[in-house]
Amino acid sequence: MRIRFSASTYGSCYNTVIPIHACRAVSTQGRGGVHHKEFSTVTLTGSQIIACELVAAGKDGVRTVSPLDGVELDPAVRSATHREIDQAADAAGSAWPAYRAVPPAARARFLRAIAAEIEDLGDTLIDRGYRETALPSARLAGERGRTCAQLRMFADLIEEGSWVDARIDTALPDRTPAPRPDLRRMLVPLGPVAVFCASNFPLAFSVAGGDTASALAAGCPVVVKAHSSHPGTAELVGRAVMAAARSTGMPAGVFSMLHGPGRSVGIALVEHEAITAVGFTGSYSGGRALFDAAARRPHPIPVYAEMGSINPVFVLPGAARERGDAIAAGLTTSVTLGVGQFCTNPGLVVGIAGDEFDALAAATGRTISNADAGVMLNTRIRDAYVDGIAALGARVAVEQIAMGRGHAGPEQGTGDAGAGGGRAALFRTSAAALLEDRSLAVEVFGPSTLFAAARDRDELMALARSLTGHLTCTVHGTDEDLAEWGDLLAILEERAGRLICNGYPTGVEVSAAMTHGGPFPATSDPHFTSVGTAAILRFARPVTYQDFPDVALPPELQEANPRRILRLVDGEYTRNGFSRGG
Amino acid sequence: MRIRFSASTYGSCYNTVIPIHACRAVSTQGRGGVHHKEFSTVTLTGSQIIACELVAAGKDGVRTVSPLDGVELDPAVRSATHREIDQAADAAGSAWPAYRAVPPAARARFLRAIAAEIEDLGDTLIDRGYRETALPSARLAGERGRTCAQLRMFADLIEEGSWVDARIDTALPDRTPAPRPDLRRMLVPLGPVAVFCASNFPLAFSVAGGDTASALAAGCPVVVKAHSSHPGTAELVGRAVMAAARSTGMPAGVFSMLHGPGRSVGIALVEHEAITAVGFTGSYSGGRALFDAAARRPHPIPVYAEMGSINPVFVLPGAARERGDAIAAGLTTSVTLGVGQFCTNPGLVVGIAGDEFDALAAATGRTISNADAGVMLNTRIRDAYVDGIAALGARVAVEQIAMGRGHAGPEQGTGDAGAGGGRAALFRTSAAALLEDRSLAVEVFGPSTLFAAARDRDELMALARSLTGHLTCTVHGTDEDLAEWGDLLAILEERAGRLICNGYPTGVEVSAAMTHGGPFPATSDPHFTSVGTAAILRFARPVTYQDFPDVALPPELQEANPRRILRLVDGEYTRNGFSRGG
Repeated sequence: MRIRFSASTYGSCYNTVIPIHACRAVSTQGRGGVHHKEFSTVTLTGSQIIACELVAAGKDGVRTVSPLDGVELDPAVRSATHREIDQAADAAGSAWPAYRAVPPAARARFLRAIAAEIEDLGDTLIDRGYRETALPSARLAGERGRTCAQLRMFADLIEEGSWVDARIDTALPDRTPAPRPDLRRMLVPLGPVAVFCASNFPLAFSVAGGDTASALAAGCPVVVKAHSSHPGTAELVGRAVMAAARSTGMPAGVFSMLHGPGRSVGIALVEHEAITAVGFTGSYSGGRALFDAAARRPHPIPVYAEMGSINPVFVLPGAARERGDAIAAGLTTSVTLGVGQFCTNPGLVVGIAGDEFDALAAATGRTISNADAGVMLNTRIRDAYVDGIAALGARVAVEQIAMGRGHAGPEQGTGDAGAGGGRAALFRTSAAALLEDRSLAVEVFGPSTLFAAARDRDELMALARSLTGHLTCTVHGTDEDLAEWGDLLAILEERAGRLICNGYPTGVEVSAAMTHGGPFPATSDPHFTSVGTAAILRFARPVTYQDFPDVALPPELQEANPRRILRLVDGEYTRNGFSRGG
Repeated sequence: MRIRFSASTYGSCYNTVIPIHACRAVSTQGRGGVHHKEFSTVTLTGSQIIACELVAAGKDGVRTVSPLDGVELDPAVRSATHREIDQAADAAGSAWPAYRAVPPAARARFLRAIAAEIEDLGDTLIDRGYRETALPSARLAGERGRTCAQLRMFADLIEEGSWVDARIDTALPDRTPAPRPDLRRMLVPLGPVAVFCASNFPLAFSVAGGDTASALAAGCPVVVKAHSSHPGTAELVGRAVMAAARSTGMPAGVFSMLHGPGRSVGIALVEHEAITAVGFTGSYSGGRALFDAAARRPHPIPVYAEMGSINPVFVLPGAARERGDAIAAGLTTSVTLGVGQFCTNPGLVVGIAGDEFDALAAATGRTISNADAGVMLNTRIRDAYVDGIAALGARVAVEQIAMGRGHAGPEQGTGDAGAGGGRAALFRTSAAALLEDRSLAVEVFGPSTLFAAARDRDELMALARSLTGHLTCTVHGTDEDLAEWGDLLAILEERAGRLICNGYPTGVEVSAAMTHGGPFPATSDPHFTSVGTAAILRFARPVTYQDFPDVALPPELQEANPRRILRLVDGEYTRNGFSRGG
């Protein structure tokens, strides 16, 4: 009963380097004959992609600015017109019946072809990503590895097929007082999905990232809204998806990609009647705007918005005493990773006031002080971070206890990685102050964290209870701590999608058991994860067939179980077939 | 691997008689010593139930009117005050940590105790239900059987335990370039749930109906908003839940029940910050109002509103030719069942214009003409039905082709079951008219249906494509029809939660493979069913534990798998335990 994909191969990538699939030098057969792909000379167009075609029409374009040096990057990118938004969504709607009928094995080939096309982009993709996001090449290469691994993971998942949660109750024609009909249920695709790219994951949560991969795997066409921070990276990946769709014979409307502001192009896309679900990773205000627009529709649709969180870390007394220095080092690594631009960045560290917690804060202060500044993703994020830490430091109840290396001042884009706003910062307050004023614990997107000392156990528990929904909550504790603080774990579990013991929240494994989600406002729908195989469940819904002849049913529900998937048949989980009525 | 519940025992009940568990005459130990329950003399109070206590305070009450004879029924029922709403929701919030920690076996005892307490009510419940709803005793007894069977089904489900969808990826400490942590994921309860009772299912979708049973099974406290149509029935069942909670030692806040209008008491309940999800069965306007209120909250919550549909039936040419009379008889039974007051009532019958379809319409007209009228649930529903069929019959494009037996006129409540508004009605129009004006296909809640003849195959397909979401779609066809009309099935599958072949939509089996749901506006969330074991998934969300010591984990995720549930461990579905790291 071993299913074909092995969870061990997909890897983690937020804080680790991923084995990169060797960039293949492939000969391809073009119209003009055999040639080598020369992506280093690829010409970006700044166009929309509509139904797998680059579209030339549109408004005057704007150039994105490199965070590295403030230089405007070619090409100018045009915002999608209303007509183009309609065309993309309508094409997705038209392609849906054909795409959902594509057998899983062919959809899997499509997903794998996307991964191969992305790898074929080679250094062109990494170089452009670096110019647009300032993320180092090694990080981008790792993220590319994760992106391709995710696509292949979903290919494996749908080839194996048990994800459809098939359930069969065979007919009981002789049951009294009434017979039971034959009932067969499985998950089917929801319909066209709008995917919003994230600024902080130009590959793994953008054009061909987790949302797109899981939607395409489920059988849903995708319309991507590219992020204005990295339009060239988006176009490269979009063209890779386009090429893969063509080479594997998918209906053209299966993929489109639009440029433009979220507040206009994005909202119009979400309001389009052909769209049936939305995937989003970004800010609270952006996610909430899409959620509200979707809820206001005549026919509301689900929005899976991952809106970030502060990912509280609780350091219990025994752990603070025994491993304070190690925790300080680990926290600093986690806080500063990727210039703090992860949704799982730990923004709050809570412990019991006393010598141990003071020592932990001091040790963390030392490591934070030694951390180098990094260039942030764009000037808007940089400015928000600089303003955010200035505002936090100015609060009466808050003390700034450390600041990382790097030139002071607001400049970014001088070519000097140390000159930007991305300096690490460490603050301290009391749990009492946080309890009094929740606004102290607001997310500051970037490499900063806030230590909060609770007077005693009761105050720490009160602080835990005051938390809203988060992607993660972390506890550092000895075995004795954990035994003693079971009630804290119970409280945290009600408020998070993932609980971490003696670790750090950055680093999200892409696997079957991952939950990257959580209660509002971490996400807009607590039932789902956006990372790992279960992410596909966002884009599917159950359908029951009653008394259909076997031949008219999908293979997943046929008596013989030709796909050998795991099914619940008359109360028994089995990969065996059955005979009708038996 | 056979799990302990057998889906064959739960039964169907919308259109069938259910084996009723014998009403037990039990001796119970009260405070004053051994006594026999004398429910025939139970005194209804019209009170709220807050945290398993009858509460006396409140506004002046109103008496509900029996649809049988127009008589006002004692007691006066008081609308919950704002304070009482807060108390009920706060009690649910306070009870949640304790209730979710109750082991599944103890929760199962609670569910079974509710069923036993309901059965102990004996004829008192049936008599009161009949007085309040005019539903015949046999139907109410069947519905009671279903209600108790549902409670026991969920008890079996959580005792078996595999519903939590446990997934484990064991640690890979030696993986390069980075180790994989130990990840263990399962579903946990969402939090306190508000349940809205349905007028048309005073037992199976009311106080202890499917929503309450699935929420309590998941580990969620419940606050019920009783329906004003049957407050006495609600109180009897509410007191049964209360007694069961006490006898099995549940935290008191696990159950509360409030009376009052949906637009005030209901909305206030949905807006309360302790409430984390909502279950509703009723009208589109009622469901949409709750959905909108939930979406407007600072922290939005999911609403599972089942808002009805017209459940289209397509009769293909071969079936119309070969089985026209049988289909006519079956349709009439389905249309008139329970005076047409089912959300799965077939309100639209579509076929290809011609002699066969004319003959089918004529045969259905004959059987409809012979159908007896029935008393509807209340005068509001009766009036809406009388107005609805009058408005439909007055449309230029619509012809009334049959009317069932019963006195004409708007009177209801004379004690004569034939005197009410619940006369069956059959109308006819063309598919072209429906395509031109969708308002012709609006749901008329009651025993009426509309035949629509399509000029040809293309027009029938266009009509199918014009449908919005429905709970069910039905196709009558010979094997040849089904082979020829595969594209119709594909279209219908995109628009329904359940597809029925050569049957009728009324009759919803309560089992693992049932889907009672569907795309908007059939329900407000297409991912879920409100009937069958999968209904529990509405009230649970995934949580992942990372690197926790085995002893700190729930039994469902421990290495030894002490509950022997089915888990996905490193890509393999198994009930076996494992050793960490192996």
